[in-house]
Amino acid sequence: MTTNTYAVTGMTCGHCASAVTSELRSLDGVTDVTVDLVAGGTSSVTVTSTQRLDQSQVSAALDEAGDYQLA
Amino acid sequence: MTTNTYAVTGMTCGHCASAVTSELRSLDGVTDVTVDLVAGGTSSVTVTSTQRLDQSQVSAALDEAGDYQLA
Repeated sequence: MTTNTYAVTGMTCGHCASAVTSELRSLDGVTDVTVDLVAGGTSSVTVTSTQRLDQSQVSAALDEAGDYQLA
Repeated sequence: MTTNTYAVTGMTCGHCASAVTSELRSLDGVTDVTVDLVAGGTSSVTVTSTQRLDQSQVSAALDEAGDYQLA
């Protein structure tokens, strides 16, 4: 298991956090996602997965969930 | 048909606008809802319905959709 915390910008509300959580959870190997929402600022997103994720996968998932980006 | 525009605060993103639209559309008699989103400010929500809605119904729907309020 590997756990990584990402700085993510663009989230403004709980719906954003839900969309990000849902999209990241759909990635292969991801077992847990937690979001520490800083509305309008830089939020922390912690992802636990069975293998290390590529940053590009995480970035693509954030983009898919909305217009969220790695800081 | 009656069309009313409400000033609504608390919406910050497209997800918020979708939640508000969906909740208002579920009210009896509502045929159309459009949201002019002003993220973090006062948005305009226009509701078309077959009969005039009570303000309390609209307010309750906004509360149900999230923590949104009539300005």
